[in-house]
Amino acid sequence: MNLSPITQTILKAKAAKGVSWASLAQSLEATDVWIASVVYGENSILPAMAEKLCTLLDLDESVKNFLTEYPTKGNSLGDKVIPNDPLLYRFYEILCVYGSSLKEVIQEKCGDGIMSAIDFTLEVEKVSDPKGDRVLVHMNGKFLPYRRF
Amino acid sequence: MNLSPITQTILKAKAAKGVSWASLAQSLEATDVWIASVVYGENSILPAMAEKLCTLLDLDESVKNFLTEYPTKGNSLGDKVIPNDPLLYRFYEILCVYGSSLKEVIQEKCGDGIMSAIDFTLEVEKVSDPKGDRVLVHMNGKFLPYRRF
Amino acid sequence: MNLSPITQTILKAKAAKGVSWASLAQSLEATDVWIASVVYGENSILPAMAEKLCTLLDLDESVKNFLTEYPTKGNSLGDKVIPNDPLLYRFYEILCVYGSSLKEVIQEKCGDGIMSAIDFTLEVEKVSDPKGDRVLVHMNGKFLPYRRF
Amino acid sequence: MNLSPITQTILKAKAAKGVSWASLAQSLEATDVWIASVVYGENSILPAMAEKLCTLLDLDESVKNFLTEYPTKGNSLGDKVIPNDPLLYRFYEILCVYGSSLKEVIQEKCGDGIMSAIDFTLEVEKVSDPKGDRVLVHMNGKFLPYRRF
Amino acid sequence: MNLSPITQTILKAKAAKGVSWASLAQSLEATDVWIASVVYGENSILPAMAEKLCTLLDLDESVKNFLTEYPTKGNSLGDKVIPNDPLLYRFYEILCVYGSSLKEVIQEKCGDGIMSAIDFTLEVEKVSDPKGDRVLVHMNGKFLPYRRF
Amino acid sequence: MNLSPITQTILKAKAAKGVSWASLAQSLEATDVWIASVVYGENSILPAMAEKLCTLLDLDESVKNFLTEYPTKGNSLGDKVIPNDPLLYRFYEILCVYGSSLKEVIQEKCGDGIMSAIDFTLEVEKVSDPKGDRVLVHMNGKFLPYRRF
Amino acid sequence: MNLSPITQTILKAKAAKGVSWASLAQSLEATDVWIASVVYGENSILPAMAEKLCTLLDLDESVKNFLTEYPTKGNSLGDKVIPNDPLLYRFYEILCVYGSSLKEVIQEKCGDGIMSAIDFTLEVEKVSDPKGDRVLVHMNGKFLPYRRF
Amino acid sequence: MNLSPITQTILKAKAAKGVSWASLAQSLEATDVWIASVVYGENSILPAMAEKLCTLLDLDESVKNFLTEYPTKGNSLGDKVIPNDPLLYRFYEILCVYGSSLKEVIQEKCGDGIMSAIDFTLEVEKVSDPKGDRVLVHMNGKFLPYRRF
Amino acid sequence: MNLSPITQTILKAKAAKGVSWASLAQSLEATDVWIASVVYGENSILPAMAEKLCTLLDLDESVKNFLTEYPTKGNSLGDKVIPNDPLLYRFYEILCVYGSSLKEVIQEKCGDGIMSAIDFTLEVEKVSDPKGDRVLVHMNGKFLPYRRF
Amino acid sequence: MNLSPITQTILKAKAAKGVSWASLAQSLEATDVWIASVVYGENSILPAMAEKLCTLLDLDESVKNFLTEYPTKGNSLGDKVIPNDPLLYRFYEILCVYGSSLKEVIQEKCGDGIMSAIDFTLEVEKVSDPKGDRVLVHMNGKFLPYRRF
Repeated sequence: MNLSPITQTILKAKAAKGVSWASLAQSLEATDVWIASVVYGENSILPAMAEKLCTLLDLDESVKNFLTEYPTKGNSLGDKVIPNDPLLYRFYEILCVYGSSLKEVIQEKCGDGIMSAIDFTLEVEKVSDPKGDRVLVHMNGKFLPYRRF
Repeated sequence: MNLSPITQTILKAKAAKGVSWASLAQSLEATDVWIASVVYGENSILPAMAEKLCTLLDLDESVKNFLTEYPTKGNSLGDKVIPNDPLLYRFYEILCVYGSSLKEVIQEKCGDGIMSAIDFTLEVEKVSDPKGDRVLVHMNGKFLPYRRF
Repeated sequence: MNLSPITQTILKAKAAKGVSWASLAQSLEATDVWIASVVYGENSILPAMAEKLCTLLDLDESVKNFLTEYPTKGNSLGDKVIPNDPLLYRFYEILCVYGSSLKEVIQEKCGDGIMSAIDFTLEVEKVSDPKGDRVLVHMNGKFLPYRRF
Repeated sequence: MNLSPITQTILKAKAAKGVSWASLAQSLEATDVWIASVVYGENSILPAMAEKLCTLLDLDESVKNFLTEYPTKGNSLGDKVIPNDPLLYRFYEILCVYGSSLKEVIQEKCGDGIMSAIDFTLEVEKVSDPKGDRVLVHMNGKFLPYRRF
Repeated sequence: MNLSPITQTILKAKAAKGVSWASLAQSLEATDVWIASVVYGENSILPAMAEKLCTLLDLDESVKNFLTEYPTKGNSLGDKVIPNDPLLYRFYEILCVYGSSLKEVIQEKCGDGIMSAIDFTLEVEKVSDPKGDRVLVHMNGKFLPYRRF
Repeated sequence: MNLSPITQTILKAKAAKGVSWASLAQSLEATDVWIASVVYGENSILPAMAEKLCTLLDLDESVKNFLTEYPTKGNSLGDKVIPNDPLLYRFYEILCVYGSSLKEVIQEKCGDGIMSAIDFTLEVEKVSDPKGDRVLVHMNGKFLPYRRF
Repeated sequence: MNLSPITQTILKAKAAKGVSWASLAQSLEATDVWIASVVYGENSILPAMAEKLCTLLDLDESVKNFLTEYPTKGNSLGDKVIPNDPLLYRFYEILCVYGSSLKEVIQEKCGDGIMSAIDFTLEVEKVSDPKGDRVLVHMNGKFLPYRRF
Repeated sequence: MNLSPITQTILKAKAAKGVSWASLAQSLEATDVWIASVVYGENSILPAMAEKLCTLLDLDESVKNFLTEYPTKGNSLGDKVIPNDPLLYRFYEILCVYGSSLKEVIQEKCGDGIMSAIDFTLEVEKVSDPKGDRVLVHMNGKFLPYRRF
Repeated sequence: MNLSPITQTILKAKAAKGVSWASLAQSLEATDVWIASVVYGENSILPAMAEKLCTLLDLDESVKNFLTEYPTKGNSLGDKVIPNDPLLYRFYEILCVYGSSLKEVIQEKCGDGIMSAIDFTLEVEKVSDPKGDRVLVHMNGKFLPYRRF
Repeated sequence: MNLSPITQTILKAKAAKGVSWASLAQSLEATDVWIASVVYGENSILPAMAEKLCTLLDLDESVKNFLTEYPTKGNSLGDKVIPNDPLLYRFYEILCVYGSSLKEVIQEKCGDGIMSAIDFTLEVEKVSDPKGDRVLVHMNGKFLPYRRF
C-alpha cells in the first residue's frame, strides 16, 4: 500500500503504546473506521482533535499538520485497479456480483440518484455466532438525486 | 451492462405488471436485493421459488430453468474494470478511500481473515431525513479466519 | 460510442425535423446540454416533459418510456478509458494538466470536500471574438464537505 | 501525485508564510488556478513574474529556473489513468456522463472542431447558498475549427 | 478497424470504379490523405464537395449526409491502445523514440506550446531512390502557445 | 519521463553553457532532433562525434561512453501507454485520426509494406505566419515492402 | 517481486544456515508451502511459532513482529496482473484453460458456491517417474455454498 | 464466457438427457474435468471417443468435428484478465497469495524449472466433513527442467 | 481470434478438400507459414498466385480479391495484449525471458539496429527425436541499422 | 529494463575487460544467447561454470551465488506489457502477424500441443548479404503434446 512515512510513524506509535482503534475511537468520540481513515491519510480532522490524538500517542507537531491537511484520497489500492489482498478484494467482488441489484433497489426506493460517498459514514460490527462469527459493515450515505430542469 | 435476453424478459414482465422489488421480496419471503441478484443472473434459487416467481410475473419454463441454473457471476460492471455509472462508482470509491481502514478494523475485531462475500447477505434501507434522505447499506458476511498450521 | 437504438431513433427524428438542441431547450425550458444528456441516455425526465419531447419530434410511447427510466450512466467514452475523439479528449487533458490546481483552489475556497457531479448543472456558451470565437463551459456543482465526526 | 521536490519546497514555503492562492493571485495579477498550475509544474511563467513569486515566498534562483522552464505537463493523475481522489474523479465522471452532450452542443454552436485546452483559461468561484454552497468552474477555450481543404 | 457500413460502401464503390485516392484528390482539389480521412469518418466536408464525391463514385444521398456530419473521430486504432498493424505501429514507435526530442526542438523554436492537430494538414510523398524508395510524411500544424496571464 | 542521470547531466551542462540544439546541430553537422535523441538515450553516435559533443559541453568520459552505447530505446512516454503531455499527445491523436488514411495513401503509392522508423530521419521546421506561426514535422523513412514468396 | 527487507533478511539467514523449507516444516510441524507463505509476508503465525522460527534462524525481535502481524496479502505477482515468470504463469494458464471445467465440476459435485481460498491448505509433492519426475499440487479448500433466502 | 454455439449445443443436449459429467467420465473412461474441457473447446479428442460422446448425447457429425479439431485454448476468462466470477477468482487469488511459496517449494524439490500445464492432469474431489464439505483439486504436471548448456 | 468470414471460407474449403498447408506450399512454391499468413489475412499475394490458390480449393472471385488486398495486419491475438492460447503464449514468454539476451547478441553481431519483421521470412521444421520430437522455428530478417547523421 | 545491481556489475566488468558474448560463449562452451540470459538473471548455471565465468571477469563470490540461484524470470520487458524498444517490439509484432500461422503449421506437423519454451534453445546468426546483412534467429523447443485420456 506504500504508506506515507507519517502514517507509518503513527501506526508504530499506536503499536508501541498498545492502543487499539476501538480505544482511540472512544477517547476521540469518533468511530474506529474514521480514525483509521485519518491515520491512513484519507480524511482530515480539526486541530483540536489532532492535538488530542497526538497527545494520546506522544506524537509531534508535524503529525498534527498531517492530520489536519486536506489529503489526496483514494490510496487503499496502491497501484492496483483491482485489489489483490483477499479482504479488500471481497468488497470489489460484492460490487461485481451485487452492483446491478444495489442500483435497482436504491433507485426503486429513492429515485434517479446515488448514495453519497462524501456525506457518508461507515461502521464495522462483529457479531458472535456459534456457527462462526459474522462481520457487519454498515454504510450510511446521503441520497443525492440527479437535478432535473 | 449487456443484460442477457432472459434478464431483459423478466425485467419487462416486472415493468409491465408494475411489480416492485419490494413486493416481489414480500411475496417470495426474501430480500429485494437478493431477488434482484437472481433476476440479474448473479444467484440461483430452488425450483419452488423459481416457480412462484414465474407465476407472479407470468413467465414460462425457460425462465424457470434460468433462475435455477448456477450462473457465471460478477457481471455488474460489464466490460469495465472500474464502473462508469456514478451509483456503482461510489462503491468503488468507498473501497479506495476506506479500504485500508476496513482492513485495520475488521482485523482488530476478528483476527487475520476476511468477511465472506459468499456466506453473505446485503440489505438496503432508506431513512427519511429533513436534511436529505439517507441510504443505508448493510453487509453481513461470515468471518473466515486464515487457517494456521 | 455505440448509441442505443432509441437514441439513434431520436437523433434521426431530430435531424429529419431540422430541430436544434437550442430550440428543444427553449421548448422544454431546460438547457441544451441537459436535453442532449437525456437523449443520450444519461439522465431521466418526468413523464410530462417526455410527452412534450415526443410530441415535438413525433415519437411514440417506447421513446417516452426510455426517457423516463433511470439509466445506467457514464457511456460517453464507450469502451475507452481515455477518449480518442479530440473534442472529448481535451476535457481529459484539462483534468491531467489542471487537476491538482483545481483541487488546491476548490479546497482553499471551500474546505475538505468535493464539487458534486450529481447536484450539478453544465452550460455551454459561444462568445464571438475577432481573434477566433471562444467556447465557455460553465460547471455548477454543490460543494459537499467530507463529514467529520 | 509524486510532487517534484521543487513543488514541495514552494508548497512548504507557501504554508509557512500562510499565503493563500488567492493572495498570490492578487499579488501576481493572475488567477489562483493558473498560479497553482505553475507551482505544480504544469505551466511556465516569464522571468519577471517568477522573480516576484520567489520574492513573495523567499525562494531562491533554482526555484526561479523551475518556474520559467517549459515543463512536461499532465501529471495530476500520477500513475493513474482514472483518478482515485474523489474531487478529481468527479471531473472524469462529468466527461463520462456529459461528454456526448458537450460534443453535440459545442458542435451545434460552433461547427466541426474543438475547444482548445491550450489557448484556454480556467476559473473557480464559490457561491454561497443556504441549501449548501456551490462551486462554479468556468472553462474558456478558443474554438478551433478542423481545416477543410 | 471495424469500418462503418457507409465507409465500406464508399470503399467498395471506389474499388469497383478503379479510382485512386490520388485521382479523387485531383478531382476534388484536396489532398489524398484528407479525402481518405473523410471517407473513414474522421473529417466532414461541405455539401458541395460531398455532392461531387458522390457523383464521382455514383453514391446516394445517405452517403452525402454521412460525409457532411461532424463525426466522432479517432477510430484508426479500433479497440487497441497501441496499434498492432505494422504500418500504424511505426508512427507509435516514432513517438516513443523521438517524442522527447520533438518536444525539445519544437519548444526551442517556438516556446511553451504545442503543434495543433486540428489546424493541421498532413501530406504523404513517395520519393524514388535506387537504394529503396522513401516515404515522406509532412505534418503542418499551427503553433499554439500556452496562454500566460 | 524519468530521465537517466547522464541525460540530466548533459541537459544541465547544455543549459549552463546556454547552448541551443540548433547550435549543437550546426557544430556536429547533424539535425537538432537527432542530437536531442542521442542526449535522451534514444540513439548512439560514433566515438568521434561523442568526443566533440563532450568537448563542446565540457563533459567527461562517462558521458562519452553513454553516447556511444547502443541504448534501450522508446522511453519518451515513461510509464504511460498514451502520453499525458499535450505536445506529445497530439502525435498520438494524429495517429488515431489519420492512421487509416496514412495506411491507405502510403499503400496506394508504394504497395504492401511500411515506412521504416529505423532507416528514418525526422526534421522540425518553424514557419512564420501572420495568422500564427506553424510547425512543420518532416518524416522520411525507407519504404519496406513485405516479402512475397 | 520486490520483497520486503524483512523477507530478504529471513531468506538470507535461511540460505546462510543452509536450511531447507522441508526441514523448517518438520521443525515447526507445518507444511513447507505454508512456512514459505509466512516468510513472504502472506500469512501470520502465532508468537510461539514465530519465536521458534527466529531461534532456528538466529533472527531478532523485529522479525518476530513481522511474522505475527496480519499482512496485506497477494503480492506474488508484484506489479503484474499476468505473471511473467514461467513457473507462476503456468498456474494462470491452468485457470485460462481449465477454469470453465473446474467451475462445471465443482458445482456438479457441491452446488452453487466456491472453494474457499481462506479456509484452505496447499501441498506440493514430487513423484519420481522414469519418463520425467512429476509435480503434484494439492489444494484443499472448504466448500462455501451461496446463501439462499 | 461467450460460449461457442457448438459448446452450447452440447451443454443443452447434456442437460436435456440429464447426464452428469461424472457419468460421461465413466462412460468415456476419462476424468470429468477433462471431458468438460473438451466440451468447452479447450482440448481435442480422438475420433473414436468423439463418436462415443456424440452417440451418448445424440449429437451429429459437426459436433464430432468440433471435438477432434485442435482448438485455440485459454478462453475461460472471456475478455477479462482477472476473472470476476467468484469461483474462478479464488484460483487467481491462490496464485497471488501462494505464488511465491509454490515457486520456492517446487524449485527446492525439483530444481530450476516448471510444472508443465501441457503434460498435465487435473482432478477434483469432494470430501464430506461435518464442519463443511471440502473441495480437493489435484494438479499433476511433469517437471520440466530448464536446459543448461 | 474472430476470423473474418472469408478466412473461415478458405479454411473450410481446405478442410473439405483434405489439403494440408504443406501441400499448398508445394503447389504454390512458397512456405507453409507464409501461405497460412495469407489465408489468415496477414499478407497479400499477387493475382496469379491468388488465382492458383482459388483453383486448388475451388474458391471464387471474392476470395481472390481478399487474397490480393493489402490487409490490416496483426490480428493473431484478437483482443488480447498477451495471448491466452498456450502455443501462442510460449512465443511471448520467449520474448520476456530471452528478450534482453537477443538484444545483446544481435547488437554485438550487427551494431545499433534491429532485425526487420517486414523483410522477413519464417519457417517451421519438425525434427524427430527419440526423447520427444522437436519444433524448430527459423526467423530470417534483414538487419536494419539505425541511421547516423 | 531496471537491471539488478549484480547484472550491472557483471556488464560493467565485461565492458571493462572488453570481452564479447561470443568469446564468453567459446570459453564456457555454451551459446552467447544463453550466457547473456544467465547474466540478465533469466537462467541459472552450475557452480563450476559460475566459478569459471567469475574468474574470466574477475568477479567475487556474491556474483557466483547470483549466477547459481534459480531466478524469477521474465523481466526483459520491465513494467511494459508490450515492449517499446524497437528491436524487442519486432518479436512481439512477429507474434501478432504470424501467430495464427505458427499455430496452424506447428499443429499440422506435430498435433495438438506446443513448442516448449523450457526445454528450449535459442541461437542467433548473422549472414552477410550484399543487399544488407541478415539476422537469423533459430528456436528449438521440444514438442509437448496435450495429454489425452
